[in-house]
Amino acid sequence: MGEIYFDYISAYPLDPRVRGAMADYLEMSWPNPSSQHRLGDYASEAVTKARSHVASLIQAKPEEIVFTSGGTESINHAIKGVAWALKEKGNHIVTSNIEHNAVLRSLRRLKMMDYRVTSVPVDEFGLVDPEDVKKAITEKTILVTIMHANSEIGTIEPIAEIGKITQERGVLFHTDAVASGGIVPIDAQGIGVDLLSLAANQFYGPSGVGALYIRQGAPIWPLLDGGVQEGDRRAGTENVLGIVGMGEAARIAKEEMGARRDQALEIKRHLRAKIEGTIEDIYFNGHPTLSLPNLLSASFKYIEGESMMIMLGDADICVSTRSACAAGALQASHVLLAIGRDFVTAQGTLVFSFGTFNNEEEVTKVVEELKSTVTMLRNISALTKKAKKT
Amino acid sequence: MGEIYFDYISAYPLDPRVRGAMADYLEMSWPNPSSQHRLGDYASEAVTKARSHVASLIQAKPEEIVFTSGGTESINHAIKGVAWALKEKGNHIVTSNIEHNAVLRSLRRLKMMDYRVTSVPVDEFGLVDPEDVKKAITEKTILVTIMHANSEIGTIEPIAEIGKITQERGVLFHTDAVASGGIVPIDAQGIGVDLLSLAANQFYGPSGVGALYIRQGAPIWPLLDGGVQEGDRRAGTENVLGIVGMGEAARIAKEEMGARRDQALEIKRHLRAKIEGTIEDIYFNGHPTLSLPNLLSASFKYIEGESMMIMLGDADICVSTRSACAAGALQASHVLLAIGRDFVTAQGTLVFSFGTFNNEEEVTKVVEELKSTVTMLRNISALTKKAKKT
Repeated sequence: MGEIYFDYISAYPLDPRVRGAMADYLEMSWPNPSSQHRLGDYASEAVTKARSHVASLIQAKPEEIVFTSGGTESINHAIKGVAWALKEKGNHIVTSNIEHNAVLRSLRRLKMMDYRVTSVPVDEFGLVDPEDVKKAITEKTILVTIMHANSEIGTIEPIAEIGKITQERGVLFHTDAVASGGIVPIDAQGIGVDLLSLAANQFYGPSGVGALYIRQGAPIWPLLDGGVQEGDRRAGTENVLGIVGMGEAARIAKEEMGARRDQALEIKRHLRAKIEGTIEDIYFNGHPTLSLPNLLSASFKYIEGESMMIMLGDADICVSTRSACAAGALQASHVLLAIGRDFVTAQGTLVFSFGTFNNEEEVTKVVEELKSTVTMLRNISALTKKAKKT
Repeated sequence: MGEIYFDYISAYPLDPRVRGAMADYLEMSWPNPSSQHRLGDYASEAVTKARSHVASLIQAKPEEIVFTSGGTESINHAIKGVAWALKEKGNHIVTSNIEHNAVLRSLRRLKMMDYRVTSVPVDEFGLVDPEDVKKAITEKTILVTIMHANSEIGTIEPIAEIGKITQERGVLFHTDAVASGGIVPIDAQGIGVDLLSLAANQFYGPSGVGALYIRQGAPIWPLLDGGVQEGDRRAGTENVLGIVGMGEAARIAKEEMGARRDQALEIKRHLRAKIEGTIEDIYFNGHPTLSLPNLLSASFKYIEGESMMIMLGDADICVSTRSACAAGALQASHVLLAIGRDFVTAQGTLVFSFGTFNNEEEVTKVVEELKSTVTMLRNISALTKKAKKT
């Protein structure tokens, strides 16, 4: 039955319609949208169309959408761009302790430039308490950056409540919606954010293209200075091919979001039930309901996620231990430690992420393989023996 | 005979072989090179192959190549990355006054962050005098950034001589080789640069992808912080499709550079001779021999480049007034003013840029249309009348 892919969070497959739109564009000439002649018009129209689809996906105005090279650039642009633009006003930023590396490391960079960062904790489900954000804001605070949904445990944060607080306090608010954009409904205006990061490859679009929502009038510096592209907010000749793909992916995501969610929730429900029914000594991570529909994180006691991942890989099953961006580093996930998992349990965690190309039959196969993998690894695990002795 | 495209400098057409390589990759699954399973290996191998082609194009080691979202990102990364990394050491940067907007505006941004910039002049051909660079370097200088070739007038700068000076003085050296990379031979090691910016869409590759050469050990901060991609120097899931295109474009550029240059020089020679032979009161801009083979800049007295461009466009001929990135703004080109053209003459300038898809027949057609355009515009030009009265 070929490879079973349960690692959407690392890389969603391209939707065939997105691939088709990109293949069509690739066939055309290769104009620069800034050129003032007809070939340029064609590219410029393609970008305009894509921009309106992305805007529509998050209920924004087209002129509030800036195309970037992906989620990481959007996040760097949002955080550093605000920090630099508002340096006269203050140097303090509030965040949570379960953010993605792009947020964590952008903030670490800013600390080297005399900014200060306060990181609020999360509860056992990975939820930020808006009251903690409120308390963390000082006279010096210029930005709050809290993710919309966590890509390791799936928890969706109370962004609208935090947005009320930042609006009251006159502090800018960025949310990293890379894991949730295109997957669950987002109303950028309604949730009161000033900046919101998206990546096309998290909703069946191509990698290497993303968008940053910048609320009209929000004070921010460009990260890339140069030409006047993207309303003078992001210089550089556009990746038109990628933008065309992102536009089509956004159009489809909006149209089919409900159906995709229902299908994903069905898989999630079965996957969870089957794991629970066949394997002992496990934890599920993240909030049971305030969560991404297409992601399930489970910790398996006494064994290592890396070993499980490799053995499942041998059985043609793709899963993650956690976000691919951090795959190079072998330390325990800061997200799992933040929700209270101990170091050993955190190491025994797998992230199953799935979508439109998965089916029930695959769930059955995955859980069968998972059961024999866990059994074998536990049998040879010194930790198991030790635990059984005591 | 369809559209005649003489605006390569705004956007090179895709080489059909590059398009083919990209179409093939687009057909495949869409893995994330950082994922630790087999689909990830496939993407990772594609990136590795592309990296070796790009490295080979400029005689660098593969590990010295960082893929970016284009020339603008490469330039911003190089300039800002060095400035921030070396802030303790100094705050002074030396540049020329004919740089691209991405350099100019990155430097302007750094001035807002307490850096100082010295801009050396150029002569009538647009050449920087290395002695001027030497004199401009102070104890506080941390970076020299001088372009390899100018995209408006084609002049190629004496980079190797400047490289000797920066090496002697222990100052980092970045060159913007966006206009020349893939067009003329570049030996990154040999010319003594520490950083060199490239863009795929300036040598028949896709837009939205570029590379930054970072000499091993050069002190520089990432512009994009986050995951550990690109040897921890540039975070973000790679635009693998674009990188595949850039790799193939680099491979072909290296292989066919000599043949392409000969063909372009032939067109340039004829274009120049025919313009000279049929139209009066013109200047050619840039150095007659130290120049890009595929670009010719000409100033037509008494009339406006914008008007010429529009009329030629009506005759299905695409040319530029100057770099597309600056096309939004209507002020006179800082490059043309720097080489001593007056404001009015600078406004009457067209850039012809061409390549493998052009031929002799097109040159004839372009000059015919150009002659009638210039004649008509001069006839109705108040400036002409005024000039003829005196």
